[in-house]
Parts: sequence; C-alpha cells; structure tokens
Amino acid sequence: MEINNLFDNLLPKIEQRLRELTAEKGDGINEARKAMGYILLNGGKRIRPVLLLEFYKLCGGEGDSALNFAAAIEMIHTYSLIHDDLPCMDNDDMRRGKPSCHKAFGEDTALLAGDALLTLAFSTAAKTESIPPERVLRAICVLADNAGIDGMVGGQAMDLKLEKTGAVAEELLEMYLKKTSCLLKAAAVCGCVLAGADEEYVKYAAEYADSLGLAFQIIDDILDCTADEKTLGKPIGSDEKNGKTTFVTLCGIDGARKRAKELSQNAENLLDNFKGDSTSLKELTKYLLNRSY
Amino acid sequence: MEINNLFDNLLPKIEQRLRELTAEKGDGINEARKAMGYILLNGGKRIRPVLLLEFYKLCGGEGDSALNFAAAIEMIHTYSLIHDDLPCMDNDDMRRGKPSCHKAFGEDTALLAGDALLTLAFSTAAKTESIPPERVLRAICVLADNAGIDGMVGGQAMDLKLEKTGAVAEELLEMYLKKTSCLLKAAAVCGCVLAGADEEYVKYAAEYADSLGLAFQIIDDILDCTADEKTLGKPIGSDEKNGKTTFVTLCGIDGARKRAKELSQNAENLLDNFKGDSTSLKELTKYLLNRSY
Repeated sequence: MEINNLFDNLLPKIEQRLRELTAEKGDGINEARKAMGYILLNGGKRIRPVLLLEFYKLCGGEGDSALNFAAAIEMIHTYSLIHDDLPCMDNDDMRRGKPSCHKAFGEDTALLAGDALLTLAFSTAAKTESIPPERVLRAICVLADNAGIDGMVGGQAMDLKLEKTGAVAEELLEMYLKKTSCLLKAAAVCGCVLAGADEEYVKYAAEYADSLGLAFQIIDDILDCTADEKTLGKPIGSDEKNGKTTFVTLCGIDGARKRAKELSQNAENLLDNFKGDSTSLKELTKYLLNRSY
Repeated sequence: MEINNLFDNLLPKIEQRLRELTAEKGDGINEARKAMGYILLNGGKRIRPVLLLEFYKLCGGEGDSALNFAAAIEMIHTYSLIHDDLPCMDNDDMRRGKPSCHKAFGEDTALLAGDALLTLAFSTAAKTESIPPERVLRAICVLADNAGIDGMVGGQAMDLKLEKTGAVAEELLEMYLKKTSCLLKAAAVCGCVLAGADEEYVKYAAEYADSLGLAFQIIDDILDCTADEKTLGKPIGSDEKNGKTTFVTLCGIDGARKRAKELSQNAENLLDNFKGDSTSLKELTKYLLNRSY
C-alpha cells in the first residue's frame, strides 16, 4: 500500500533528525532538554514534515535538503501541543497516551520546553544547506507567518474568545483555518518554495492545505465524540464537557462527515494541477480522512 | 550628553517599527494583539535594539536596513518577560510599573502573546531587505541560538534548577551568561554580521556582550536589594524573599559593585578594537552601569 511505503521511506529520516536536534548534552539544563524531547519523540504522526517533504519532491526538489524544515515544522507543532495542554489553556493531563509535558516535568519546565522548541525550529530552518538563501528566507517567512498571530497562534486566541462567546459556523471555519490549516499550509507551501516552484503551484498547495486542514479539524471534532480513549491517546468528550461549539454541534456527526469528505475530495482534486506524481499525497489525504486517532 | 543623543536618534525609529508590527487589525483576535503590544510598547529601555543598531553602524552598516532585526530582538526580550512573569515562573504581578501581562489579560492570552511575539520576531527578521540574504540567514541563526535552549531559555531552565539546589559562584556565572548575556550577544553579533564585519570583530562584539551582560545582571541583583520600588517599576526584595542565590548573597553589595565595574571596564576596552567611532557605545556601557532602574 502506497501510504505505508511513504511513511517507511520518510519517517526514519525525520525521527533521526528530530533526535539529533534535541539530543541531551549532560549539562546543567538536561531536565529542560529531556522535556523538549518528551512529546517530540513520542510517536507523532509526522503529517506536517511528510507533507513538506512530499510537496518538495512533487515540485522537483531533490535529496534531503528540506529535512531541516521538516524537523522545524514538527517542532512548532509540538511546542503548540505542549503549551495547549498547560493548565491555563486546555488543562489536558494526557498526550499521546502518556502524561502531558507539564504533568511529567512541571509547568515551568514545560513552558520553557515549548519556548525552546519554537526557537530551535527557526534556528534549524535557517541552517538549511544546498538551497538558495533567498528561498530559505522566504520559507522562514511562510513558516513564521503561518505559525504566529496571523496564523496558528491567532487561531488559538480566537478559540479562547469563541469559548466564551460561542461561535457561528463562519467564525468556527475561520478559527479552524487559522488554528489547523495554517501550519499544514506552511508545510505544503514551504515544500514548494524550497523547491523553487512557480507561484501558481504555491497557490495550489496553499488551497490544498486549507481544505485538508478544515477536513482534519472536523474529523478531530468527530473523533472527540466517537473515538475510543485508548486509541486516541487522550480523553474523549472534552469538547462537550467544555461546552465548546464544534462542527458536530453545528452540523451533527453525519453533516460533519459529509463536509470532511467534500473538503478532502477538493484537496485531492487540487493535486491534479501538479505535473509530478501526486499518488502518495493523494493516499496521504485519504489516510487522514479515514484515521481513527 | 552623548547618550541622550544616541537615544534621541534611535528610539523614535525603534518605537515606530514596534508599533507598526503589532498594530491592531480590528479582527477576532484583537485581545491577543493588544496583549502583544501591552508590555512591548510600555517604555522599555530598548538596550538590545540600540546595541544592535550601534554595532551595525560601528562595522560600517548604513541606513535603516537592520531596523527589523532591532525590533525582532526587542520582541524576543519582551516575550521572555511575559512568560517569566507567569504564575508558574516568577509569579510577578507588576512589570514596568503596570500590572504584568497575565494580570491584565489572563494567563491564557499572556501565554499566547508571548508565543506570538517570539514567532513575529523571526518573521520580522526574515523580512529584512537591502542586506545580502546569506548575512540575514546567519543573523537569524545567531538570534535563535542565543535565544534558545543553548542560550537565554537554557539560562532560565538553569535558573529553575539552581533555585532548588542553590548555586556556587561558577554556576551562577554560567546561568547569568546564558540568561542575560546571550541576548545582548545576539544583538551585538547580529549588528556585526548584518554589516558584513570580519570574524575578529564578531568575536570582539561577543566578548563585549558577555562582559556587559554579566555586569548588567549583577547590577540587577544589587538593585533588587537597594532600589526604590516605584523607580524600579517592580517589587524589590523578591530575590531575598525567594531565597535565591545572587551575586549579592555570594559577594556582598560592595563585592558585587566592584565586579560589575571591572566587567564594564573590560567591555569598554574591547570596543577599542574597532576602527569606527565607539564613543556612543562606551557611553551606553557607562549608562548601564550607573542605572538605578
């Protein structure tokens, strides 16, 4: 099956780079270094790095030159999970089937581990070799803009606001686009930019990621109602418990499933615009729609 | 007086860029944008941006091309203050004479505002124009490496550890070098790198900042015992209250003053290695030694 080949091929490289970047040094700050690796190296799906590397290849990029960016985007994703789990945010005790970072290391160290991962992401991305520096700089902008207040962090801030006020469908969509699509968009667009793709392909990649991210978030909403806690690796029913507006509360489970499917189909169709072989990206898109965790 | 000219010349530009970068957009996340500007635009001394711009000029850099990096480093400094003040860290209610960010906006929004400022710093730095991209990329590495786990965040992590174990002089110095000198070093070195300075000058700038940072932190220790709360803009005696080892507890106030003076003199001497006019940087160094807040 294509999707297994894709993961078998890419995951070992991604895991190795992430391990190298957060290796302990036996110095006076080993506890914080351990906390950085604790969630990062605990079996994430690595969807963002895989997306980045696949779009890089799809646009003609060669070799492992984009691997630093792949690691960078996973570090940004992981920092957001660590900070999101903190008591002042979602107050989640479990993450990927283990105690969350602040439960294992304390809130102070978890806060710093998140800050350190975010900072290391940019240091790692900037150390990209064998790609023209103009492209690397533009990709850093793409990464930062989509991760920051106009992107993912903005989505989290909007989430805080909507938790208090409730949300209509339009606001929920905007929040999902920022909170989830933006980092997927950074992955897809960085892949294209680093490979030197023409602007039209950058645009297709951005639209693909917008659709994929919305589908992905809607599926998260569905899984929060329907999944098995052990499979999901985190408590289920937390949205309902917190009285959150989700796609399920707005459209019902069947309506949400239908919308996710349409969005995934749209994402797949956008891949047909690329000249290269997008078979594995299409498989990835299908895989994300059918996931149970 | 030279130092006032320096500030009169540079501060308006720095303030304006910081205001532009955090301008509210009237969108659904205005509260988080307000929180980003709340501490950032509240009258910091802007020492790091001034250092960066002065080293840039000292090494032959021209125009306002380094202004984005100057803003970036102040945003990184500010994010560290916001996160440092959080209840799980220093739990400080006041900052620069006003309620700290989490007191004014809540812990969740303060956490996100810090994350957003750190991210915006790298986006802003990467958007530097009129400087060769190789230099900009190297400067981003300098900034990230000195701000992260091997620099400032590492120093904060070491601080957490030493609070529990107590510190000998050597550990305290290492912690101060990371926690305080590293970001000053990033400022000085980025200025040189962006101007295209030879490696020997980059090295002098780094040594200058190491000395300045240690002196600066020792003076912080002294002020925590001796300053007036209203002048300092934050509670005094917090180190003693928290049972912290500081340079004052290790060497006494007179011993700490002597050491700070030696370090400042060393920093001034290092400036003599530069060919350009370092008068204003020397004045800045003196000014930082004699500050009362």
